[in-house]
Amino acid sequence: MEFTVEQIAGLLQGKIVGERSLKVNKLSKIEEGTPGSISFLSNPKYEPYLYTTKATAVITSEQLAPKKDIDTTLILVKDPYTAFTLLLDEYNKLQQSQKSGIEQPSFMGNRTQTGNNLYLGAFAYVGNGCKIGENVKIYPQVYIGENVQIGDHTIIYAGAKIYANTVIGKHCTIHAGAVIGSDGFGFAPQPDGSYKTIPQTGNVIMEDWVSIGANTVIDCATMGSTIIRQGVKLDNLIQIAHNVEIGKNTVMAAQSGVSGSTKIGENCIIGGQVGIVGHIKIADKTSIGAQSGIGKSITKTGTAIQGSPAFDYKENLKSMVIFRKLPLLQKRLDELEEKVVNLPDKK
Amino acid sequence: MEFTVEQIAGLLQGKIVGERSLKVNKLSKIEEGTPGSISFLSNPKYEPYLYTTKATAVITSEQLAPKKDIDTTLILVKDPYTAFTLLLDEYNKLQQSQKSGIEQPSFMGNRTQTGNNLYLGAFAYVGNGCKIGENVKIYPQVYIGENVQIGDHTIIYAGAKIYANTVIGKHCTIHAGAVIGSDGFGFAPQPDGSYKTIPQTGNVIMEDWVSIGANTVIDCATMGSTIIRQGVKLDNLIQIAHNVEIGKNTVMAAQSGVSGSTKIGENCIIGGQVGIVGHIKIADKTSIGAQSGIGKSITKTGTAIQGSPAFDYKENLKSMVIFRKLPLLQKRLDELEEKVVNLPDKK
Amino acid sequence: MEFTVEQIAGLLQGKIVGERSLKVNKLSKIEEGTPGSISFLSNPKYEPYLYTTKATAVITSEQLAPKKDIDTTLILVKDPYTAFTLLLDEYNKLQQSQKSGIEQPSFMGNRTQTGNNLYLGAFAYVGNGCKIGENVKIYPQVYIGENVQIGDHTIIYAGAKIYANTVIGKHCTIHAGAVIGSDGFGFAPQPDGSYKTIPQTGNVIMEDWVSIGANTVIDCATMGSTIIRQGVKLDNLIQIAHNVEIGKNTVMAAQSGVSGSTKIGENCIIGGQVGIVGHIKIADKTSIGAQSGIGKSITKTGTAIQGSPAFDYKENLKSMVIFRKLPLLQKRLDELEEKVVNLPDKK
Repeated sequence: MEFTVEQIAGLLQGKIVGERSLKVNKLSKIEEGTPGSISFLSNPKYEPYLYTTKATAVITSEQLAPKKDIDTTLILVKDPYTAFTLLLDEYNKLQQSQKSGIEQPSFMGNRTQTGNNLYLGAFAYVGNGCKIGENVKIYPQVYIGENVQIGDHTIIYAGAKIYANTVIGKHCTIHAGAVIGSDGFGFAPQPDGSYKTIPQTGNVIMEDWVSIGANTVIDCATMGSTIIRQGVKLDNLIQIAHNVEIGKNTVMAAQSGVSGSTKIGENCIIGGQVGIVGHIKIADKTSIGAQSGIGKSITKTGTAIQGSPAFDYKENLKSMVIFRKLPLLQKRLDELEEKVVNLPDKK
Repeated sequence: MEFTVEQIAGLLQGKIVGERSLKVNKLSKIEEGTPGSISFLSNPKYEPYLYTTKATAVITSEQLAPKKDIDTTLILVKDPYTAFTLLLDEYNKLQQSQKSGIEQPSFMGNRTQTGNNLYLGAFAYVGNGCKIGENVKIYPQVYIGENVQIGDHTIIYAGAKIYANTVIGKHCTIHAGAVIGSDGFGFAPQPDGSYKTIPQTGNVIMEDWVSIGANTVIDCATMGSTIIRQGVKLDNLIQIAHNVEIGKNTVMAAQSGVSGSTKIGENCIIGGQVGIVGHIKIADKTSIGAQSGIGKSITKTGTAIQGSPAFDYKENLKSMVIFRKLPLLQKRLDELEEKVVNLPDKK
Repeated sequence: MEFTVEQIAGLLQGKIVGERSLKVNKLSKIEEGTPGSISFLSNPKYEPYLYTTKATAVITSEQLAPKKDIDTTLILVKDPYTAFTLLLDEYNKLQQSQKSGIEQPSFMGNRTQTGNNLYLGAFAYVGNGCKIGENVKIYPQVYIGENVQIGDHTIIYAGAKIYANTVIGKHCTIHAGAVIGSDGFGFAPQPDGSYKTIPQTGNVIMEDWVSIGANTVIDCATMGSTIIRQGVKLDNLIQIAHNVEIGKNTVMAAQSGVSGSTKIGENCIIGGQVGIVGHIKIADKTSIGAQSGIGKSITKTGTAIQGSPAFDYKENLKSMVIFRKLPLLQKRLDELEEKVVNLPDKK
């Protein structure tokens, strides 16, 4: 995708200072600008980069009063940050709309319905009895099992695997290598020490506007559904076990894991590499620090928690400070004991 | 798959109270029952749900003496829990037997032998010289390198990748995106600070009844074999390094990792996000708490251990309780010092 | 691949003692030697295995003075360790050169250039406008998006997914299921509690001699590039977030994660399951112990650090020793307080 400065200025209703026929094909930070890129300057702190940037064009404020010569072409707008955000949105729309059509060979099952403007990449597999909405993009090598439902405008990147009976909402994004609906980890111990598989008969339900990172895994429920509510954003390499429910607009950073049947509230913020045990509840708006281990329910909305096992965020910081000084603490205790050793025992 | 209440009652040798022609197509918990599902009631604690459940049918005890009106159809049996387990087993068998045949396009190498009743999904790739047993199910987009052996009744889900020379037993399950036999992480430091790759020439051997979770990785041995013994169950996103051996019937929860050449005993239970260093031995029946870090061998059978670095489970709990109170401990020490500061030094 | 003892002795310029026509097809450790394998004996500590090994042939020193009868065939060389390394190198070359040609069906985009001796496996997908060097091996089911560049001698194993605009150097290895260039985890909070996706417009640049483990994920930059410098070795299941830079010859063990915009120096050694927060710098030659959490920049070259949160490696060990004894420490404090309770308050 390549655009002229003139085309971009037209989109942003900006005024061009410089060469309007120059072409740009990517976005850059002003301090890292390269020829062929367009950048923006909003925060005055970064103004010095305006005079040195290699970016072909820079979006900046119409209020700008340059202090030095400027080599780059300018697009002057009222609010450069908003203008750049608008540009990002347009970029996003272009990205998402550019793919359509059915590449061959691909595999489409029986009784599967598809909406308009489908992209189905080569080597993608769609099982029997699926319902696929409008404007859905299914990249190459994606696997979709039987009876899967996929809402409008959802994008599934290369090689993601969706097991049978999964329900996916509208405007969802699933990144490469993610696995949705694999069997929950359920085994019944037998008298001889072996384990018998407990069939996992449920599914995964993912509501609208959910984003799933690369190589993240969401297991299906033993019975019923593992549920990912509207607007949830999961980063890469996350583990979500069977029968978990994650509340609306909760975000979770990479490599965290949630054990079976736990219910996480709305608008929680969960750091990376966090582990959460099974069968507990996490209140709305809980913040969990990276690498924490959550072993019991969190009942109060807005709790901030840290540590493994986790407790109050600030208390944990205080304890960690003293943890570092434990050798000193022990030495002080040794010295005190030495001092009081001759005191008579209390009677 | 859809069955009538009559068909299910026949299978379970149960007596129907209600409408025998109703159809069910999934299993549910009684408290979450939806129309079209069949549930069970075994524990009397859940009896109140019997009068409110939306499940189409409920399997329960022939001893039941209802206290209120019941809307759902009942299947009365001697032991409802056992009957439901039987139903789950039948569900499992149906699930596993329903796929067969070879979908096209798929890729079958030269000199590869396959057994009866194979399912080979579209876009699956089987290399040269493989031996594949009876009733094996290979889902779409699976990769199987050269000279791989796969035992009878094994299921490999979509997109799993099996490197050359891997040996897989009977009745194994490998979930989507799992990687078996990738190169061990072996690099020899060079004088200039770079690293030279140490060729990984071995393989992975997986015995019977092993289950491997989605996106889990098992590296091949440098020389010889990485070995996963009979009945081992590995959850999702686990890392097993080169030359590791995992003993019979050991289970490991998601996101745990085992470093190179470590030998884990039989019937161990290893929590999620555990890390185990290389070149150690873990005794049989060891229990390791979630997020623990195991830095040295565990020699005593039946050890329970927790923490990073880990030590005795109960001792760790005690230390963690005091860790939370470290600021108080420090304050008490400050006050004591204040009190004894005027004592004469011992002479 | 099968060779006679004579062929191997020729390669190593060694002298054969025993049967020169025997065939071997794999390498083994001397203590685990199996018929058909070739092993080596360098460290005298292992000499007893020479008299019991089942290996078909053993490479050992021409200085060897056997103390017992030897059943296996010997290849005598000046330096057995160096000879075995040479054998490993030859093994490696054979492995890497054995695949070539284009299997069908595979998908090759428009305007994509490829070099000589390409291997393109069945069901592999190469998008439009890619540039692929000489002697590149692309295994089955690999996905390569648009405008990707791949340098000479690079190997991409089955099912790895490379997003559009990624740049990969020469002599790189990418293992099965790895995802390179997925969207960074960037979402802007909205007044209603939902999140808006921040388009990730950058790419990933991977220099020469980089190795990426199975199911590892490297996100593209928001703008600009996520950069993996020459000679970096990443193990399996690692998370590298957007705009991260990893310095030359740094190695990172499995399941570690690096958050956005962090810059890691050269020749660092990072253990398994480590977490590193975003927007910090890690000095060259830093060593980070397994399961550590790094929350702030490390400025001194050669720092060794451990813990979550991490501090000096040796100090951390000392604190951990006392952590285990906290119940005893508390008891000593209780007893001291008891003793001094009757002292008059200082005035």
